[in-house]
Amino acid sequence: MGEALDEYMKVLLDCGMKPQSEIVAVCDSAGRITAEPVYAAICAPHYNACAMDGIATLASYTVGASEESPVVLSPEQFVRVDTGDLLPDGFDCVVMVEDVVFADGTGDSSSETGQGDGSPVLRSTTDRENRPRCPVSCTITATSTPWKHVRVIGEDICAGEMILPSNTEIIPSALGAMIASGVLEVQVIKKPVVGFIPTGDEIITPVANPKPGEILEFNSAIVSAMLKKWGAVSKVYPIVKDNKELIIKALKKALGECDIILLSAGASKGREDFSAAAISDVAKILVQGIAMRPGKPTILGYDGAKPVIGMPGYPVSGIIVMEQILQPLVSFLSCATRVPDKYIDAVLSRPVKSTAGFFEFTRVKLGFVKNVVIASPISGGSGVVTSFMRADGILEVPQDVTEYKTSDKVRVRLLRREDEIKRSIVAIGSHDQLLDEIGDLLQSGQGDGSPVLRYTADRENRPRSPFSLTSTNVGSMQGIYAIRKGEAHIAGVHLLDEKTGEYNKSFVNRLIPEGGVTLYKCVKRKQGLLLAKGNPKGITGIGDLLNGGIRYVNRQKGSGTRILFDYLCRRDGIDAAAVYGYDREVYTHMSVAALVAAGMADAGIGTYSAAKMYDLDFLHISDEVYDLLIPDHFLELPSIQALLGVISSKEFKNRLEKLGGYIVF
Amino acid sequence: MGEALDEYMKVLLDCGMKPQSEIVAVCDSAGRITAEPVYAAICAPHYNACAMDGIATLASYTVGASEESPVVLSPEQFVRVDTGDLLPDGFDCVVMVEDVVFADGTGDSSSETGQGDGSPVLRSTTDRENRPRCPVSCTITATSTPWKHVRVIGEDICAGEMILPSNTEIIPSALGAMIASGVLEVQVIKKPVVGFIPTGDEIITPVANPKPGEILEFNSAIVSAMLKKWGAVSKVYPIVKDNKELIIKALKKALGECDIILLSAGASKGREDFSAAAISDVAKILVQGIAMRPGKPTILGYDGAKPVIGMPGYPVSGIIVMEQILQPLVSFLSCATRVPDKYIDAVLSRPVKSTAGFFEFTRVKLGFVKNVVIASPISGGSGVVTSFMRADGILEVPQDVTEYKTSDKVRVRLLRREDEIKRSIVAIGSHDQLLDEIGDLLQSGQGDGSPVLRYTADRENRPRSPFSLTSTNVGSMQGIYAIRKGEAHIAGVHLLDEKTGEYNKSFVNRLIPEGGVTLYKCVKRKQGLLLAKGNPKGITGIGDLLNGGIRYVNRQKGSGTRILFDYLCRRDGIDAAAVYGYDREVYTHMSVAALVAAGMADAGIGTYSAAKMYDLDFLHISDEVYDLLIPDHFLELPSIQALLGVISSKEFKNRLEKLGGYIVF
Repeated sequence: MGEALDEYMKVLLDCGMKPQSEIVAVCDSAGRITAEPVYAAICAPHYNACAMDGIATLASYTVGASEESPVVLSPEQFVRVDTGDLLPDGFDCVVMVEDVVFADGTGDSSSETGQGDGSPVLRSTTDRENRPRCPVSCTITATSTPWKHVRVIGEDICAGEMILPSNTEIIPSALGAMIASGVLEVQVIKKPVVGFIPTGDEIITPVANPKPGEILEFNSAIVSAMLKKWGAVSKVYPIVKDNKELIIKALKKALGECDIILLSAGASKGREDFSAAAISDVAKILVQGIAMRPGKPTILGYDGAKPVIGMPGYPVSGIIVMEQILQPLVSFLSCATRVPDKYIDAVLSRPVKSTAGFFEFTRVKLGFVKNVVIASPISGGSGVVTSFMRADGILEVPQDVTEYKTSDKVRVRLLRREDEIKRSIVAIGSHDQLLDEIGDLLQSGQGDGSPVLRYTADRENRPRSPFSLTSTNVGSMQGIYAIRKGEAHIAGVHLLDEKTGEYNKSFVNRLIPEGGVTLYKCVKRKQGLLLAKGNPKGITGIGDLLNGGIRYVNRQKGSGTRILFDYLCRRDGIDAAAVYGYDREVYTHMSVAALVAAGMADAGIGTYSAAKMYDLDFLHISDEVYDLLIPDHFLELPSIQALLGVISSKEFKNRLEKLGGYIVF
Repeated sequence: MGEALDEYMKVLLDCGMKPQSEIVAVCDSAGRITAEPVYAAICAPHYNACAMDGIATLASYTVGASEESPVVLSPEQFVRVDTGDLLPDGFDCVVMVEDVVFADGTGDSSSETGQGDGSPVLRSTTDRENRPRCPVSCTITATSTPWKHVRVIGEDICAGEMILPSNTEIIPSALGAMIASGVLEVQVIKKPVVGFIPTGDEIITPVANPKPGEILEFNSAIVSAMLKKWGAVSKVYPIVKDNKELIIKALKKALGECDIILLSAGASKGREDFSAAAISDVAKILVQGIAMRPGKPTILGYDGAKPVIGMPGYPVSGIIVMEQILQPLVSFLSCATRVPDKYIDAVLSRPVKSTAGFFEFTRVKLGFVKNVVIASPISGGSGVVTSFMRADGILEVPQDVTEYKTSDKVRVRLLRREDEIKRSIVAIGSHDQLLDEIGDLLQSGQGDGSPVLRYTADRENRPRSPFSLTSTNVGSMQGIYAIRKGEAHIAGVHLLDEKTGEYNKSFVNRLIPEGGVTLYKCVKRKQGLLLAKGNPKGITGIGDLLNGGIRYVNRQKGSGTRILFDYLCRRDGIDAAAVYGYDREVYTHMSVAALVAAGMADAGIGTYSAAKMYDLDFLHISDEVYDLLIPDHFLELPSIQALLGVISSKEFKNRLEKLGGYIVF
């Protein structure tokens, strides 16, 4: 992190906060950290316990006993015992039942039926100590020694012995050790309580159908989940309006109840951002605005021993602030040993720019393609919560670096396990909802018709396939480039060759002349104009897009749909650039449909399935071929085999039918 | 695992059990696994949202605006907006507040005070849409483009888009993505419910002062903690007496309420072990007794789609059965991706024997000494719960291996993180309680007088030292051998040279003639005879141990205390072998004290601190020197430096004073 920020963190960590402790029942203490050493209250075992089912006797009685020369014990020379019984007074060893035959024929065989035999037995617990001894003699076939098969008092733990030192995570077996040694309560480090105060006039508690201008408050859910993972407790306060006095009131309440306070949103310098003013009223402000991106508008302060952090409302900024600033504070207070971050070396698929002087956190997708790790920066501002959800790692760009170039080697902090990323099929290219459905079927193991049931040596058994699919929607042309550069396993392509009327083949031949790739037939799909329900603008074809007041929404350059539109315009002699909205680019069929449905555009080209999803009118233009481009050397990969299995499965056909507008080959 | 057991596991996994699902609130869903794909209910953003504080206007009004040639907008050409506001109708972009100056002087500067200015503003939410516009004009110094600083509807997520596929772990940011797209509830895989039925007449619910023969039921605590870690839920049933009918009743109840049933104890063939009989009454038994150690007496069965497992009552056996048999079943039902086990290559410090045909699990301590990982098998049967708690790893001995020799290279499955093991100081040698106190001070960071407060580049800041101490009590001689073989960082030694009356030096010179080691002065401690309170047997010295009826308890060969006793006997002309109990060896002072306190021995040699702990009479024999033997090349290690810091700390002296009988050098 930046040096300046490190200094602020040192001040915060040094503001006087201290880990607190509390007493919890041992049975609830797993995963907690001991606040002081734990000493055994009693010995374990706390009495001389028989360690086997059999008889208690004196070792001296057993001398010389063997299979060949068994020794007979009279009834007063032994008592029958079970594992865990108190070794009766006057005896010093146990002979196990397998080496004993009772004169009445009971013994090992009787116990196998588990019926019990009703014969009197001297047992361990107090109320049984007066029971009569076994009335018959027995024969033993093994010599014993003093204390054999006896768990002597204190054998495991002696009273007064230290069971656990301070600052130790309590693992499940430690619960057993504590209880066995009479420790039923334990002093542990208190989980830090972090107060979260959401603010903003536009913020509302989540509802299913928000009105325009209402923002669903979801930061508290993210923050609470992160805190729980770190062993802290969140206390989420009601949403506070953009009013300085109300915010101060909320801060004061939280300062009385929590160890660290997060004030969400209002940290930048907008006209209704009262955070700085409110925080300065209750706390000492260390800094307003830090050299970190996302997260720049963060405010750091403290009141006595309690850090107060004003954090940006944008979720990605918020998550980065949580990771970089809150986690060190929480792990200090919780005494938790932080699992060290894991990094991986990767090759950048696109350049990354960074602002000089800022420590930047770029979300990247990672793909293992041909044993090289490819890092693809995820676009989307700090308001785009999916950019974090979809990220496999974070590229941390130091303050003195302003640019990484394509193919630069970088170190990426992992957000997922490496083995999970390794099992992922990387799809880069044209978007279609069917890719998501393939991913789902792959992951749920339904693709090949039945749940995969495996019990393998690595015990990774589960009712699903181990593979997943991660797709980046950049259009058909970029997909072909990605395959050529070895950045993807598969690419969805649907590129119409105007001259031949054929799809894909000529593009691939031209862009990958060396070959070695296969165009795997996936589906045909209906493409057409997406129009508002009932077609209020009366659009009957591409030509009408030039009519006054018609707003078109286009797809990005290099996408098959964009190329289709350009072709249609040329074919019909339309000046594409004259179409209002030609420059307005979105990246998926769904985005086109969403904008038309919202009345923000009157027309756009997209798939039938997108039209159906948004209940739009659909003017059919063509049935286009959507192929998957796959390098030949990937075809034998188990993951690609599983993917091809999914594509040919009945369940996949069912899903396509539900989406609508697809023709399966 | 063994082949036969693998077959049984396949049968169990195939018995028909299936992951179940349930609906939970999204805010409670972190860490859960999706049971079906999650689709967005609404777009995110669900309206065109201003992405900056500033003004909403039309891009066409802003053409040409720059610092050099500002453009003036009349009041009807813009409205003031804040981040998150609905973009007002008729506008297509936002100019950020930094590029705007209002004619009334408000703007960026006013907002910094956070006071608001009372001027009317068109705001986002419905009740504000009719507010009048800003009454003054403004000047802008930047040109905008359509949709600049606007988060267009669906920019992040389009309604209908798949947010998460099935079988995906829900990470914190995914909560944000779901809520933002109007998904407030989610179908997740139900946590498997595992019923645990403890049985046994001698088993009782934990109490502080159990009577002899009463065993505290702690398996349920261990099992519950393990299940929680694996994402399952435990349902612990009341303790059932050793009665077949009662056990059957409990099994039937559990079968009606749980997905998997564990019947604890009674799985072997003792006379009161009814497990097999009871399980066979309610379920089909697959096998009784498996080729695994610990865990041999396990019973595997199933009723319909519900596995029923009879597990041994000994905690170590139970934990191994949980790991090897239960965890695969739980991870199948929970659809959780199991984190792959981690292994490490190690060198064995002692031989390990295994029974042919059995898959054996040997608990080992691991130490990083001179960059070599040393694995030391932990002694103690499967009843010794501390053997699991103290283990750093498990040596899995395959069925066809019957022996590993000292110095054999083995692979060890890690139970702790490698970095934690690396930070651990390995102490092998003579036991003294002060080692535990050193470990505690080391871990709590109190040793050097003040809590260690560090904020380092790896963010491993916490109020404690990163080091810990792990000690194996094998006696002084074994400690010197361990140092010589490079298996330990330090060894506690207290060996009296009869000829010189000096401690330790001559032994070290003889056993490590090449030198390169330092005897670090630690303490002097009082050794003496530990006698029952009030000395009922009237023992006045070593000579009285030969008196009739006096039971002595000895320490193990090679321990300094044993050597002291042998010396004392020789000195006083006593035939040590004639002392009753000379062959009865225990490994620590505390064990000696515990046996004397329990009336199982009348005398033993031990430290004053052990006598004090057990409130025993103490007959002083000598003040002996307890040194720490440390190889010179370790003295500069940060961990050893920290340890030496602890030893010279005031807090350590306080602790010794509390223990009693120590003289600090």
